Amino acid sequence: MAKLRLDISISLDGYVAGPNPSEENPLGIGGEQLHEWALGLEAWRKPHGLEGGEVNRSTGVMEESQANLGATVMGRNMFGGEGSWDAKPWDGWWGDEPPFHMPVFVLTHHDREPLVKSGGTTFTFVTDGIESALAQAEEVAGGKDIALAGGADVAQQFLRAGLVDEMQLHVAPVLLGGGTRLLDNLEGANLEFECIRVIAAPGVTHLEYRIAK
Amino acid sequence: MAKLRLDISISLDGYVAGPNPSEENPLGIGGEQLHEWALGLEAWRKPHGLEGGEVNRSTGVMEESQANLGATVMGRNMFGGEGSWDAKPWDGWWGDEPPFHMPVFVLTHHDREPLVKSGGTTFTFVTDGIESALAQAEEVAGGKDIALAGGADVAQQFLRAGLVDEMQLHVAPVLLGGGTRLLDNLEGANLEFECIRVIAAPGVTHLEYRIAK
Repeated sequence: MAKLRLDISISLDGYVAGPNPSEENPLGIGGEQLHEWALGLEAWRKPHGLEGGEVNRSTGVMEESQANLGATVMGRNMFGGEGSWDAKPWDGWWGDEPPFHMPVFVLTHHDREPLVKSGGTTFTFVTDGIESALAQAEEVAGGKDIALAGGADVAQQFLRAGLVDEMQLHVAPVLLGGGTRLLDNLEGANLEFECIRVIAAPGVTHLEYRIAK
Repeated sequence: MAKLRLDISISLDGYVAGPNPSEENPLGIGGEQLHEWALGLEAWRKPHGLEGGEVNRSTGVMEESQANLGATVMGRNMFGGEGSWDAKPWDGWWGDEPPFHMPVFVLTHHDREPLVKSGGTTFTFVTDGIESALAQAEEVAGGKDIALAGGADVAQQFLRAGLVDEMQLHVAPVLLGGGTRLLDNLEGANLEFECIRVIAAPGVTHLEYRIAK
């Protein structure tokens, strides 16, 4: 059965974004360190249209996390960033050819026509909640898995509702000391985690959990 | 060279104790779940005077974490618990034959004569700060490593001071949703972590970090 998979980089102290995110620095202060492990990989650079890059123990993890996906769900901040959205309906962080290459469902309170981009990415804006976003994603995913891309608030909504099947944390060995934590606000969710794989790679530790409800 | 090693069980959301710790429940609500992985192990039961128990992938981790130690440093709450201390100078949580079997240095603001227990454990009370506790521990450790036993406040003091050489997190796959976080209050500590080993075992994931200053 198709799974909803949350796959996210996180600091040793549990943050998925640093403090004071802004339009210039959407990941917050220090937040770019969370993704350093990925940016040098050939497996990341290629789908982003860049040449070169490294092959290491993270390569398989990244390839796998991008494989067998039929759709992506994300929050409005991950699509477009705080602030900018209300001022002008803009096209998000992701440029003309976003790296998703699949349908993306963006949770928001603002109704908007779908945004069709090059390379197979269409952003569809969903205003009626997470279950609706997931149902729409499943409808187009053709039996493949759905990626839950974040940010933390949307991830928490799905976790609280018991809708996430797998969670992979890419733990960067840094402390951000503030910002947005992934695993907050989950009181009463009654989730059971089982670690199904750990991989130590250069600059990151990959922890994969199955979530039972 | 002798190392200062922090070895501690932690929840997936970063807590080393649950909310509302009390004399009856020093680990806070849900905190006992952090240690479930250890309590069933033969390697834990034997030094605690209990028979039976399991051998699994955590066994080597626990044996190693108990090996080559010459002294232990801990905070006053870990020795004796909040509240009880001031009311009556009591003997702590650890009974007549504590499981340490080595000199233990307890950081406190209250001067007190050393407390000699059976089985090689002597609690020495240190009122002049972490560097003094570490120096005293090193003096008796005979070149062996020092265990930094916690709790979080004392661990943070040593981390902030750049005195911790290795940190092993035993990550229990549970959310506590509140309590005491290990890796808080470390702003400006400028610590560099390098993950040197990961082991997935039943009910726990062991992450070992070397800390460079």
